[in-house]
Amino acid sequence: MSRIGIFDSGVGGLTVQRAVMEALPALDTVYLGDTARVPYGTKSAEVVTQYSLRNARFLIRQEIEMLVVACNTASAVALPALRAELPIPVLGVVEPGARAAARESRSGRIGVIGTQGTVASGAYQAAILAARPGAEVVARPCPLFVPLAEEGWTDPADEVLRVVARRYLSPLLEARIDTLVLGCTHYPLLKAAIAGALPGVRLVDSAEAIAAEVRERLGAVPGPAGRHRFFVTDTPERFLAVAGRFLGRPVPGAEHVDV
Amino acid sequence: MSRIGIFDSGVGGLTVQRAVMEALPALDTVYLGDTARVPYGTKSAEVVTQYSLRNARFLIRQEIEMLVVACNTASAVALPALRAELPIPVLGVVEPGARAAARESRSGRIGVIGTQGTVASGAYQAAILAARPGAEVVARPCPLFVPLAEEGWTDPADEVLRVVARRYLSPLLEARIDTLVLGCTHYPLLKAAIAGALPGVRLVDSAEAIAAEVRERLGAVPGPAGRHRFFVTDTPERFLAVAGRFLGRPVPGAEHVDV
Repeated sequence: MSRIGIFDSGVGGLTVQRAVMEALPALDTVYLGDTARVPYGTKSAEVVTQYSLRNARFLIRQEIEMLVVACNTASAVALPALRAELPIPVLGVVEPGARAAARESRSGRIGVIGTQGTVASGAYQAAILAARPGAEVVARPCPLFVPLAEEGWTDPADEVLRVVARRYLSPLLEARIDTLVLGCTHYPLLKAAIAGALPGVRLVDSAEAIAAEVRERLGAVPGPAGRHRFFVTDTPERFLAVAGRFLGRPVPGAEHVDV
Repeated sequence: MSRIGIFDSGVGGLTVQRAVMEALPALDTVYLGDTARVPYGTKSAEVVTQYSLRNARFLIRQEIEMLVVACNTASAVALPALRAELPIPVLGVVEPGARAAARESRSGRIGVIGTQGTVASGAYQAAILAARPGAEVVARPCPLFVPLAEEGWTDPADEVLRVVARRYLSPLLEARIDTLVLGCTHYPLLKAAIAGALPGVRLVDSAEAIAAEVRERLGAVPGPAGRHRFFVTDTPERFLAVAGRFLGRPVPGAEHVDV
């Protein structure tokens, strides 16, 4: 029996949870959404690191054998502190996403979109250059994409989504990128609109990239369907109201916890 | 010498600070922006109340004689807890804004826009009905307005702002309101676009309404220009980068504090 812990600043990490469940259906998971402090993307590296350590300590007490940091912002700024403190392997979404983009790009012109915190950290830029020296990386924060996904205005024909996507993405089109990293867990919900604004550009979903890495590290996990527990730091109601949209299936319940 | 404390979840409360400084230039103020936990508008009443009490305890230690809750969400849900605990008067933005709208509306059809937390609390709706029984109140959350204001996309000709404003405000136009309460401290920055989407509708800025109430409670405050201190719970850099836009003048500096 294998059990991993996954944390995110809120509900978005459920897109990572979903990819992990599809890759390893028998794996047990414990998910923690830090909904009392969401979002991390507009906050400083210091504060995000402090919150990440608290989340990790809670998950360690749930007897996990590996920690997945589903939040791009926390992956971008807090991995060194988490790895220094925790006695188990810690995976972030940035490195797998960056490596997938470096591998899939033909031209070496790669775009990255994410929160202000993720982009300002330079973590994706550095990881792509490490995997592919000489790559040209164009990174841009897209702060309106998260509330758009949470409003449910995700139809690619939606007028608001179209003008916002054009505003954020046309500089990337002009830079002639051929690959774009969706560097925020909310963005897979906007994939169709992002693809529409960037014709011919390959989209890399960090959630899928990290799920592949988890499977590679753990190997096959045989057995019946895994068990899944969900914890949140704010009251569960709002989390449960939108969680199904992110997980792609109903979330039966979530427990409140102070961390 | 009079000194008041003002807190908000982040930078938006500086629009209230600005109105108070204009109404009472000699008043000393201490401002606290809870930037490590911003925003409050998507969080539960329980968590917002807990954060509000921590903010208030810090400000009480700064020897203030009155507390102004600049955050609409905190004013909507946390005033009873604050008033029960604190030994000084506590004013929120909801009641002054609601009373101004009730007074200024001719038809009694009044709109309210704010965060999800503010609208879900029903606080504006209740306060307007208390001030004007029989009023028809139409309330609607506008979650994209805050990131729009923080992006600085505030020009009424901005395409993104125009389509978002039309999406949120056309139901209010159809409801034939004649007065609209800007029930979030970020919204005064979008006033021109909101007015453009709602021709003929009177806009009530809660910041101005509460400044008038502070002046009424304190009376004239004579003397030279007041002194102003600014505290934030995250690192000061991001706060300072946008603070001037909200205060309408440069913010010389801010100190970090854990509350």
